[in-house]
Amino acid sequence: MSAERGSPSTLSHLECSKPGCGATLDYATAPNLCPACRSPLLARYDLAAARRTLRLAALPGRSNTMWRYEEVLPCAAAQAVSLGEGRTPLLHAERYGERLGLANLYVKDEGANPTGSFKARGLSAAVSMARALGVDTIALPTAGNAGGAAAAYAAQAGLDCVVAMPADTPAANVVESRAFGADVRLIDGLISDCGKFIAENVARHGWYEVSTLKEPYRIEGKKTMGYELWEEFHGGLPDVIVYPTGGGVGLIGMWKAFAELEAMGLIGPERPRMIAVQAAGCAPIVQAFERGAATSEFWQGAATVASGLRVPKALGDFLVLDALYASGGEAVAAEDEELLEACRGLARHEGIFAAPEGGAGLVAVRKIVERGEIGDDDSVVVFNTGSGYKYLEAWQRALGS
Amino acid sequence: MSAERGSPSTLSHLECSKPGCGATLDYATAPNLCPACRSPLLARYDLAAARRTLRLAALPGRSNTMWRYEEVLPCAAAQAVSLGEGRTPLLHAERYGERLGLANLYVKDEGANPTGSFKARGLSAAVSMARALGVDTIALPTAGNAGGAAAAYAAQAGLDCVVAMPADTPAANVVESRAFGADVRLIDGLISDCGKFIAENVARHGWYEVSTLKEPYRIEGKKTMGYELWEEFHGGLPDVIVYPTGGGVGLIGMWKAFAELEAMGLIGPERPRMIAVQAAGCAPIVQAFERGAATSEFWQGAATVASGLRVPKALGDFLVLDALYASGGEAVAAEDEELLEACRGLARHEGIFAAPEGGAGLVAVRKIVERGEIGDDDSVVVFNTGSGYKYLEAWQRALGS
Repeated sequence: MSAERGSPSTLSHLECSKPGCGATLDYATAPNLCPACRSPLLARYDLAAARRTLRLAALPGRSNTMWRYEEVLPCAAAQAVSLGEGRTPLLHAERYGERLGLANLYVKDEGANPTGSFKARGLSAAVSMARALGVDTIALPTAGNAGGAAAAYAAQAGLDCVVAMPADTPAANVVESRAFGADVRLIDGLISDCGKFIAENVARHGWYEVSTLKEPYRIEGKKTMGYELWEEFHGGLPDVIVYPTGGGVGLIGMWKAFAELEAMGLIGPERPRMIAVQAAGCAPIVQAFERGAATSEFWQGAATVASGLRVPKALGDFLVLDALYASGGEAVAAEDEELLEACRGLARHEGIFAAPEGGAGLVAVRKIVERGEIGDDDSVVVFNTGSGYKYLEAWQRALGS
Repeated sequence: MSAERGSPSTLSHLECSKPGCGATLDYATAPNLCPACRSPLLARYDLAAARRTLRLAALPGRSNTMWRYEEVLPCAAAQAVSLGEGRTPLLHAERYGERLGLANLYVKDEGANPTGSFKARGLSAAVSMARALGVDTIALPTAGNAGGAAAAYAAQAGLDCVVAMPADTPAANVVESRAFGADVRLIDGLISDCGKFIAENVARHGWYEVSTLKEPYRIEGKKTMGYELWEEFHGGLPDVIVYPTGGGVGLIGMWKAFAELEAMGLIGPERPRMIAVQAAGCAPIVQAFERGAATSEFWQGAATVASGLRVPKALGDFLVLDALYASGGEAVAAEDEELLEACRGLARHEGIFAAPEGGAGLVAVRKIVERGEIGDDDSVVVFNTGSGYKYLEAWQRALGS
């Protein structure tokens, strides 16, 4: 598996993410959290080896998926469980940007991924490693899209999959997960309740838990969004990145990607300002950011049409907040009506059919532009984390039909 | 516009597709059908010029969209109205293929396109040219997905769009078209009735009709599926191509692409066997093929869950049939229950969430394998023309929920 002799992957070991712990582990052991302190584990690479072959000029002609960055992924492209994830369009939203006074507004359209969302990246990496490690059954709680992606990659890999999701998750997520053959458990509650269900049953049934940050590889898949921006900006990075933040793994992942790129000498010390956007009905990171806190509090009564943002307490909240503070970024909340209005505008003026979470990103852009915190010519990338086709109920509400 | 001096596009003129007519036209005139005989017009290129730069080795590093083949497209990539169409995953369906006894079964997953279907390719090309020609409003009848794609590209281009679709078109198509700001007309009937509505209103309102084959550029976008196969098979082509055929523009387009590739000396005279698959509830091409006819008869009472195949009479039927006969291919019908069963199998064993039309393609593969008409090692490419997320009603039926 993975970083064997001759593999392009330079995976070397796993390391605890908690400042002060620093425990290291063998990646061949299929661990979940740090055995010492129960914090998330991060994959570490031999970046000196990776830099020998990972160059911009080497990328054209490689796999047309996120696995093109295989030096800094946990296994080689040839060993990956892949459905064509990554390499999503970076669309210049000229007319929508003009309305906001921005000449360089871009939408990174993650809805083009397999299973119609950014979750494909993380689950492609996690399932690749689960298969390599000999796992039979993966299990996870989900706000919706991660469940569909997990079920799809498990199907591709020939693994069993158990998905726990709130009973009021959008229909598309329930249908796709069942279609992929997953054992779908609808839970009367939030993703946190689903997480409890999975955690309580993992040991009993011998499932391998691939919950957000409870295994080290989903973040590795998600970080490829950062490598793609680096490639798309021709070795540079945008000035501002706006990221819809539920569990926040993509933001943490991109932040990790930028550190790796700098360590390889491929970028300098400058960083984009990282903006986390949440729904006003579930904004624990925003609340923590406004208090200057290092971690967030559990958000009571989470409710929003942007189902992917219904995460009352993220395990990696401290990593998200750290990236916001370190980058001079911030956290912004969007009301449901505002984000649906932004979705309508993006469809009408750009032809992009976004998820409500993507609409939330545009609301954040508008708010920070109004505060004068973005220059006219700053390059701003908003992540649309999923396809609008998976949120038909939300769109029917948005259109009043 | 388009093939001006210095443009990478080598578009030279338009030519009537009808054998014996052969009328030629200037491409700068925004024509619909041949003014002499009312047959579809085809775009012609200076292929001697195109071959100077269009080589396999030149492609890596070009636009990561279908516009990478700009020499043989009606305008340059830089002038295109683009949302990231094309370059869809070609997935090796190993486990599903094994069940059919095929080692080299591939699914070309067109659901990864913008607006979740293969229609994006045709409409990207048509809207690019409509904008270049100064059109204000495009109009078309649709079985569903073409309407969504037309509306999206019109929105991106800043054009108005009128879409006529059957009242019982899947909800996703109605919602997306409205979201993109199109004027959506729900017609109590089939796409043929929608076509009549558009044809009757075009002149009165000054709309530019972009109905299938009634303008010359949708086929140019669709033909890029053929160029992509050529690139993905490293300068070769698969042995068999299975194509869900409503209007059949993609099949006609790929056939045209292969002729262009041969004219440029990039492939030899061999061709894949072209298999058209239709739904048993609307199979005019199958009926015509079985009779050895050159054209099809209008199919009465068309009905199928594969909404994109509800095309009772295709304007380009003679071009489709010609490609089937010339390639040693055939036409196959799939029952709704069979194609939904195939969709379930593909999801369960490959993690691909296909449109019913894609399921029909798999049924055709099974049938011709059972007849002994495909060798174990033949390379077979089945087009999944759209994302399953746009067919939630059909999937709910497929899963019995």
